[in-house]
Amino acid sequence: MIDMIAFDADDTLWHNEVHYQDAQEKLFRILTPWADPDMVKEYLYAIEMKNLNLYGYGVKAFVLSMIEAAIQLSKGCIQGKSIEKILSLGRSMLQAEVILLPYVIRTLRTLAKSHRLMVITKGDPLDQNNKIIRSGLVDFFAGVEVVSEKSSAAYQRILGNYDLEIDEFLMVGNSLRSDIRPVLDLGGKAVYIPADTTWSHENLDGFDTSQKDYYELEHMGQLPELISRLE
Amino acid sequence: MIDMIAFDADDTLWHNEVHYQDAQEKLFRILTPWADPDMVKEYLYAIEMKNLNLYGYGVKAFVLSMIEAAIQLSKGCIQGKSIEKILSLGRSMLQAEVILLPYVIRTLRTLAKSHRLMVITKGDPLDQNNKIIRSGLVDFFAGVEVVSEKSSAAYQRILGNYDLEIDEFLMVGNSLRSDIRPVLDLGGKAVYIPADTTWSHENLDGFDTSQKDYYELEHMGQLPELISRLE
Repeated sequence: MIDMIAFDADDTLWHNEVHYQDAQEKLFRILTPWADPDMVKEYLYAIEMKNLNLYGYGVKAFVLSMIEAAIQLSKGCIQGKSIEKILSLGRSMLQAEVILLPYVIRTLRTLAKSHRLMVITKGDPLDQNNKIIRSGLVDFFAGVEVVSEKSSAAYQRILGNYDLEIDEFLMVGNSLRSDIRPVLDLGGKAVYIPADTTWSHENLDGFDTSQKDYYELEHMGQLPELISRLE
Repeated sequence: MIDMIAFDADDTLWHNEVHYQDAQEKLFRILTPWADPDMVKEYLYAIEMKNLNLYGYGVKAFVLSMIEAAIQLSKGCIQGKSIEKILSLGRSMLQAEVILLPYVIRTLRTLAKSHRLMVITKGDPLDQNNKIIRSGLVDFFAGVEVVSEKSSAAYQRILGNYDLEIDEFLMVGNSLRSDIRPVLDLGGKAVYIPADTTWSHENLDGFDTSQKDYYELEHMGQLPELISRLE
């Protein structure tokens, strides 16, 4: 029997990547004097990857990497007033309205009657906790865990904290790398619900979709039926 | 009986504020063309306070606020190459050597024989977890909790996670605001060990040091004796 159903947050419960894409579009415009969009995109991704161990995930890390890309591409010539525009993109992202994905509320309402639900997400805890509060979903969840990296070890620690055996646990998310693979590696069940846009870092080449305990759905509305079937 | 002894991390286990002070000194030099040190200090603190709800604590938040202060004080004229120097201050802070405070190792070694120990800290989880690993202290701790704000509610949640009653819990730290007051408010015991330098935001005017369950020590080396006395 499944005791705890855990959800990823960004692009599983609500739109997120779209805010990053929007900000990137605006960065293209700010950097028009020095580089074309493809070049900005390439530099930015490379800088984000370089900074990942140091900055981690989330909006603040993204803003710092955008500023670094802007300085590099302008060869240090960009002025404070343009950097201010980048800071302002970050502030807007941190205050953006939380827009739930389709079927989320009705699915949580259904599942909450029969299971404990929780959120496991990575990124800035302040930002993630703020989004959960603004989403209006907070009362559905028995717990919210914000980790710096969704490794198998991080999941194991959470299972321990909630006194859960791995076969009582099911994870739902849009990232093969963060939500699916580490849970399958531990012997748990994982439901992959692809998002319209997913940051390329979250994809996995050559992932084996025929694995035991791996499930894929088109949207969250199909989750209650899958869970009934599994039990 | 005390079951769990929890430690704040920054400026309780290791030096931290000194890195912020150093970075600020370097910012003074970068901004020499536009403002004197007192003015930079005043602007920076005001900007940090304005951003606190949005950015939270930690190095990334501090770097973003330094950049914002630099842009404001230069009226948007500061160039990318100077902003790069500010980014670089942040990178150095995130990679700085972790220098333990006096008596920390011997005290943890003594207390670990008789009690469970943990860390409760605020800030970026990635940065805080990295520092705990680099400190070499990780094996002393039964748990590490990084919260976005050390409120009474946050402490209560942690007590719940570790199945602790408040009278089994003792908190040690250098911040009256974050380590001492919220724990005393819950009815727990708190040991204040002032640091040489503490960020002004962490101080509390008019704090009543005659409260029940409040203790003050000069340094960590005095902690085992206090705990024996309390039991």
